[in-house]
Amino acid sequence: MNMSIEKILNPESIAVIGASRNPNKVGSAILKNIRLTFRGKIFVVNPFAEEIQGIKSYKSITNIKDRIDVAVISIPAEKVLKALKDCERKKVSAAIIISAGFKEIGKAGEKRESELKAFLKNSKIKVIGPNCLGVINLDPLVNMTFVDPNTKIFKGTTAFISQSGALLSAIVDDASANDIGFSKIISVGNAVDIDEADLIDYLREDEKTKSIVLYLEGITNGEKFMRSLKEATKKKPVIILKGGRSNKTSSAVMSHTGSLAGDYKAYELAFEDAGAITVSNVDDLFNFMRDASKFEIKTDEVIVVTNAGGGGVITSDHINEQGLKMAQIGDKTVSDLSKILPPESNLHNPIDMLGDASPDRYKDTLNVITELNKPTIVIFSPQEMSMPLETAKVIYDIQSKKQNLPLLSVFLGGTNVEKARRFLIERGLPTYEYPNEAVDIISGLYFYYSHRYPSYDRYKKEKAKVTAFQGKKNTFGMNAKVVFDRVGIKTTAGVVINKESELNKATEKIGYPCVLKISSNDVAHKNKIGGVITNIKDYSELEKAFKNLSQIIKDARLNGAKLELYEDAINGKRNPVEILLGGHRDPVFGPMIAIGIGGVHANEIDEVEFVLPQISDQKINELSGSKVGKLIISAGGNQVFDEIVGYAIKLGKFMVANKNIKDIDLNPVIIAGNTAIAADFKIFVE
Amino acid sequence: MNMSIEKILNPESIAVIGASRNPNKVGSAILKNIRLTFRGKIFVVNPFAEEIQGIKSYKSITNIKDRIDVAVISIPAEKVLKALKDCERKKVSAAIIISAGFKEIGKAGEKRESELKAFLKNSKIKVIGPNCLGVINLDPLVNMTFVDPNTKIFKGTTAFISQSGALLSAIVDDASANDIGFSKIISVGNAVDIDEADLIDYLREDEKTKSIVLYLEGITNGEKFMRSLKEATKKKPVIILKGGRSNKTSSAVMSHTGSLAGDYKAYELAFEDAGAITVSNVDDLFNFMRDASKFEIKTDEVIVVTNAGGGGVITSDHINEQGLKMAQIGDKTVSDLSKILPPESNLHNPIDMLGDASPDRYKDTLNVITELNKPTIVIFSPQEMSMPLETAKVIYDIQSKKQNLPLLSVFLGGTNVEKARRFLIERGLPTYEYPNEAVDIISGLYFYYSHRYPSYDRYKKEKAKVTAFQGKKNTFGMNAKVVFDRVGIKTTAGVVINKESELNKATEKIGYPCVLKISSNDVAHKNKIGGVITNIKDYSELEKAFKNLSQIIKDARLNGAKLELYEDAINGKRNPVEILLGGHRDPVFGPMIAIGIGGVHANEIDEVEFVLPQISDQKINELSGSKVGKLIISAGGNQVFDEIVGYAIKLGKFMVANKNIKDIDLNPVIIAGNTAIAADFKIFVE
Repeated sequence: MNMSIEKILNPESIAVIGASRNPNKVGSAILKNIRLTFRGKIFVVNPFAEEIQGIKSYKSITNIKDRIDVAVISIPAEKVLKALKDCERKKVSAAIIISAGFKEIGKAGEKRESELKAFLKNSKIKVIGPNCLGVINLDPLVNMTFVDPNTKIFKGTTAFISQSGALLSAIVDDASANDIGFSKIISVGNAVDIDEADLIDYLREDEKTKSIVLYLEGITNGEKFMRSLKEATKKKPVIILKGGRSNKTSSAVMSHTGSLAGDYKAYELAFEDAGAITVSNVDDLFNFMRDASKFEIKTDEVIVVTNAGGGGVITSDHINEQGLKMAQIGDKTVSDLSKILPPESNLHNPIDMLGDASPDRYKDTLNVITELNKPTIVIFSPQEMSMPLETAKVIYDIQSKKQNLPLLSVFLGGTNVEKARRFLIERGLPTYEYPNEAVDIISGLYFYYSHRYPSYDRYKKEKAKVTAFQGKKNTFGMNAKVVFDRVGIKTTAGVVINKESELNKATEKIGYPCVLKISSNDVAHKNKIGGVITNIKDYSELEKAFKNLSQIIKDARLNGAKLELYEDAINGKRNPVEILLGGHRDPVFGPMIAIGIGGVHANEIDEVEFVLPQISDQKINELSGSKVGKLIISAGGNQVFDEIVGYAIKLGKFMVANKNIKDIDLNPVIIAGNTAIAADFKIFVE
Repeated sequence: MNMSIEKILNPESIAVIGASRNPNKVGSAILKNIRLTFRGKIFVVNPFAEEIQGIKSYKSITNIKDRIDVAVISIPAEKVLKALKDCERKKVSAAIIISAGFKEIGKAGEKRESELKAFLKNSKIKVIGPNCLGVINLDPLVNMTFVDPNTKIFKGTTAFISQSGALLSAIVDDASANDIGFSKIISVGNAVDIDEADLIDYLREDEKTKSIVLYLEGITNGEKFMRSLKEATKKKPVIILKGGRSNKTSSAVMSHTGSLAGDYKAYELAFEDAGAITVSNVDDLFNFMRDASKFEIKTDEVIVVTNAGGGGVITSDHINEQGLKMAQIGDKTVSDLSKILPPESNLHNPIDMLGDASPDRYKDTLNVITELNKPTIVIFSPQEMSMPLETAKVIYDIQSKKQNLPLLSVFLGGTNVEKARRFLIERGLPTYEYPNEAVDIISGLYFYYSHRYPSYDRYKKEKAKVTAFQGKKNTFGMNAKVVFDRVGIKTTAGVVINKESELNKATEKIGYPCVLKISSNDVAHKNKIGGVITNIKDYSELEKAFKNLSQIIKDARLNGAKLELYEDAINGKRNPVEILLGGHRDPVFGPMIAIGIGGVHANEIDEVEFVLPQISDQKINELSGSKVGKLIISAGGNQVFDEIVGYAIKLGKFMVANKNIKDIDLNPVIIAGNTAIAADFKIFVE
């Protein structure tokens, strides 16, 4: 366990450096929040005051005799470092730096932040912040933030980490209005010392935390973050809202793969690979905050029980649209239901108990259905004679008898069902206003429980030699081909042609049909200058091609350009299937591998799947169901699909081993019979 | 104006047939609702009672002396027809049949419903229902439904039509809890007489209705519905939630096009073409119900003004994800803002006024920004010193000064901002809990205002001759080719080969390379049996191909099969781009035309756009930006794209003229240089 974080969250004594007498100042709200919540010793540091909020004020923390566990610092940015040094002298173990005025304000702040980092490097003191809202622990209670002291915050089992202080206070306020409780609330600010990964590691082991929710805008150390995230999801659900998803790609990207990958793609991949649940709206967060730890979803087959046909219809729509399935109801269950329900009922999923369904009918039906132990959404729509509160009580009774039952209720309507909803919410039962909310929870948790312990059998099976790449410049053509030969990816046979007289001998090795290409480090897209002649069928065609391309080199003054002769893997095939394989190094998360529809129109078709170098068996399975997966299997069968997965793994290992490589394009990789052969090769380092 | 609907919504006298003394019965709730709301004359018909709820009860409606405008019928299904006949005799102009027990309960009910329809055909009486919840008019007030009489319903400007009674009552209850009012609320039930289209026509002209919201599960008469919808959207926004969107396709579909079209696709297309806004969640409906008529959105460039960086970030994400744009802030505006805002502010979109933004800072900033008259989302996040209610008042003042300002506010948080939210909601201002809600409204209304008056210039330009198709069976190969030649779609040259001796002469017409195919009405997918030999380069190859295919015909006993010789439009091209053009007749909405990525892998790639026969210029523009559009333009330029659009229009006219045709597949349509040539032809009638 990270003892510094433990100390910050469970201090016995706190000093507020920069406590303020002015009730409109941050330093006043912090002290007030601590006073209202904390049972340990509180000290105040403010050289200009005698006492604040009835507590004696010290000129400096060093003047305090007692031991101080945590200093909460809220003074002008330029004074923070000095205060930290005082803390160190006083042997304070940790500090929360609330003060803003660091990297977030530009140049001057960046300098200040570097100095802070430099100091912390050689200091024992551990820091949260700066530029943060502070930290709240709900058990034992201590609120070291400047959130409005009137905000009610409930104890719960969700830890919330936020990179935005403003969103944090809004979300906490909103959550409390919706009966959602927390175990810990942490605003990380600029995270100069303790970062998101450290906190995730701590919360993973925290027994009072059953799920972890994060609002992130960016990550500095992708590798460290991923490691922590992967470990955490083995123990409890982690839910992430990522701000800044816009898919801007730098226009300078030369590779196909790089231009197909967006900025957010790497985050998405990393979160998915680590088994974290991602949401895209603030409101999506709330239901997960409340219910993510309440039950496990181990199947994607969902049952819907309703008293309103329309409610069943729209719920089925959401289930299908989320990639879940409507469960088949077995004969035995249908027969059991037929004894309970009126003859006009629908005994198949969605099970319609009809508009006059009484609480007893709900009870009998749910008793049968919950035996199946599948995620079940029970819908109540207020109708003539229906009794919402009594129905809610029936649902509560059923939930109470069985622990962790994946039974989610939706009470449609407003005033008429308000009491029923409150009854269930106050008892901690998963109940929702709209069917899509229940479906989203099931879908998110099904993803979590089916990706929690990924297997890597296929990945491990792939015996890739690690190949070094020493190139310092972008490398195309034959120079790149030989690299991929070493990596273990099948490539078209090829030779460099230095002069016309070498052509004849070259064709002995290559055969017909063949392809003649210009190879120049100045030309990333040869086709655009007419630098590729394919399907050359005999020597006379080859001679003509040679003259043609030589002329292009001359006209375009391509210094150092060469001609290269390759076998033509398409070999006259009418409908060749061309795949794109590529690699792209994300600045935060490192390499990602692309498998897409290739060929000269790859960018227009824009159909590409990305995987991480260490690809899980689950991901391979998902890939096989994607458009590109289906296309590969349709053209080359499972054998070629497996071969291409192998190529992807090899490419991944190659990029992991060679950090100088930025992007790789193998396009096209041609499916020729029962194998796949890369026919064009590019390595980008700059 | 439809006078029957006018009469139903504005009756002077109502008779309740089947009013009940039992307070738990539907007939009791209806009478109670009418009594609580209606100021005209109320009569009660129940042969078993003397009086109900203090009103004298008649044995039959015919016993009543006064004129009756509307009869509300809630008696057992088997007695409904008799009651209707009484109504006719009494010269009642309209009836609302609440009673269930018709088509929705199966066979017995279907018969009852047919009898009802037969009677209505020759009757002057107009009917809403059966199997419905009833009708509410808010001005003048009359509630002729059995919704819980305790449900508060507010007067507003939205008309709500629902095919599900249960959802209607839930949504009305929920809407009222959220201060959303209605002009009319209509449950259509089985719609044996007055249907959704009639109601839309009426509501289009209704001055008290500013927007129309529909919950639909299915439509019987697609053509009539579309006509009404198109007219209505010219006058006011129409918002549709369609239940039953699951993409089940009948497994019997033989054509590519048919299998690529799902059941929901036709609805989606029809709604989009008619300019209706579609939503997929019940909760999405509410914001549109409340705000769809409050402002017009005429640009997709959105401005975000915020006091919290995080709030700006997530709002920008939603804007980009909805296909909208972040507006560029011009130099003049930036300069104006720089005079108002502190130096650390972000003067570019999203405009960040910083966490300590006072109401005055909001006011000054919004005064500058609203001058630009672009949709603007103003975000408030509760922070130290921020004043939510005062900020809300500033927003209100600004809205009051300018009518229909597209200014949407989001107050993040819960208890802290509740009063501010209430302040704005009570004054009818568009304010939301989460940024995505504001973005969805802008996106929906931008769609509406940019599709409201579609232009059909390209469609009109296409002079397609209407070609008759008399075929009574599925028609493939040459028999189909000659049809498309007449339609005006370029096809590959071809001849039927009856015997080997005809080959030589045929090649004089066709030339090399050529393609030899089996043509048989028993074989829809020739490739699967090896029935196509392409790229035949000389006579000896042709002879071999002939023998080969003749043998297949013999082996597979394909009676009546013929061989057909075609030019090979691919002509050795290495990366031919193959498009799929097709037609599919939806049982409700009629023909839809498919333009997709074609070739033998069309189903795996599954990239297809559907258009209606009468394609708008807007849709053509959207098509050009789709993946298939980009592919066509990349391969053949705008000229070929325009040619293919022309083919689509011709195909559409052809299908409209020939109602016996179910599906058409032209796959592949090969892009050869600056033209597109269909190379395979199938017409399905069965």
